[in-house]
Amino acid sequence: MERAIDTQLEDLKKMILLMGGHVEKSLSKVTAAILSRDVSLFDEVHAIEKRINEDHIRVDNVCMNILAKQGPVANDLRLIISVLKINNDLERMGDQTVNISYSGKDYLGRKPIQAQLSDVQRMSEIAGHMVKGSLDCFVRGDVEEAKQILLMDDELDSLKNKVLQDAMIHMKSNPDDVEAGLDLILIARNLERLGDHATNIAEDVIFAFTGKDVRHGGKFG
Amino acid sequence: MERAIDTQLEDLKKMILLMGGHVEKSLSKVTAAILSRDVSLFDEVHAIEKRINEDHIRVDNVCMNILAKQGPVANDLRLIISVLKINNDLERMGDQTVNISYSGKDYLGRKPIQAQLSDVQRMSEIAGHMVKGSLDCFVRGDVEEAKQILLMDDELDSLKNKVLQDAMIHMKSNPDDVEAGLDLILIARNLERLGDHATNIAEDVIFAFTGKDVRHGGKFG
Repeated sequence: MERAIDTQLEDLKKMILLMGGHVEKSLSKVTAAILSRDVSLFDEVHAIEKRINEDHIRVDNVCMNILAKQGPVANDLRLIISVLKINNDLERMGDQTVNISYSGKDYLGRKPIQAQLSDVQRMSEIAGHMVKGSLDCFVRGDVEEAKQILLMDDELDSLKNKVLQDAMIHMKSNPDDVEAGLDLILIARNLERLGDHATNIAEDVIFAFTGKDVRHGGKFG
Repeated sequence: MERAIDTQLEDLKKMILLMGGHVEKSLSKVTAAILSRDVSLFDEVHAIEKRINEDHIRVDNVCMNILAKQGPVANDLRLIISVLKINNDLERMGDQTVNISYSGKDYLGRKPIQAQLSDVQRMSEIAGHMVKGSLDCFVRGDVEEAKQILLMDDELDSLKNKVLQDAMIHMKSNPDDVEAGLDLILIARNLERLGDHATNIAEDVIFAFTGKDVRHGGKFG
């Protein structure tokens, strides 16, 4: 027999997937804005972030309602606590795309520099895969794929370090480009942070479906 | 008659206060390390962050236990959900003090620059007040003070912008100091983010004690 809570949990999962879709869209728009020098796309990023914020409040309220009315325990409770956390991470990811839009707008307003935008593009692609992948694992309860996400985060970190090093070398030889170089560094750092939130989600998936806490160096295996 | 859950909620509040104390200590140590050029203090920051991470997992588990065994509703439920969120914010604050320690260590390893460290010191003081203040409001349920925290965040943001502008001007005239300038910018940004987490806590307090959601521009008044 299907329990009322099962339907509610399925609806919650759908809301989280929808919200994740908004994050992916916002990330791809903000990256396209920078790469194609199309500032009009930044406004779309802000519009999407508003929707993500609305989603955030709605998901929180639904979780509160289920907790108050159903008093879930065991797996159901773990799932709802994970949704509350994932919800926060998705909302912060939306913030990161907005942060990127600010640095991106600054960057496009300056004298173009010979920069490794291809690294920024690659970072955005990886971060996008991580967002999608982490939510796929969440919905399917795929713990093996969650572990893959944790590995992708390492690649993102290396690329961030590369952007940072390259930008600093450029800034030292071209002091006039200090602002533009800093914009790129901040964009790369925000992309890295966006990936960190996807990593948090992967860790929450592992917790929700195994009860194992892999945060803070907790072992998984 | 006192309910069992009342004692548990009081214990939770004490755990959160203790954790907040660790964050304050970590922040003041990392700032002292930079200002007094004492790298040995960075190790203490890392040791404190380990404790914060342990606190984080413990608080989460206590919340889960109360949710599973007591099935709290209304105010009690709102309080526990707030604790889960505050717990996350405190853990992220610990991360920020560690991030500051990395940039601080880099900074101290370079040729000293004539920099506005007084602004960084002021930022750290404000962020510290915000951490302490936000937890005081949480424990006392003082919504008025929570509103003060939101205002202090504006001062922190202005100072961050000042550090950023001053550092960029310095870097343009002294390209050899690009790395040191960037270290300062990253320290200022991490202090600002630490303050953002205190702001989140203040918003959670307002939510826990009034049921009003002031996140994402929700009105309070």
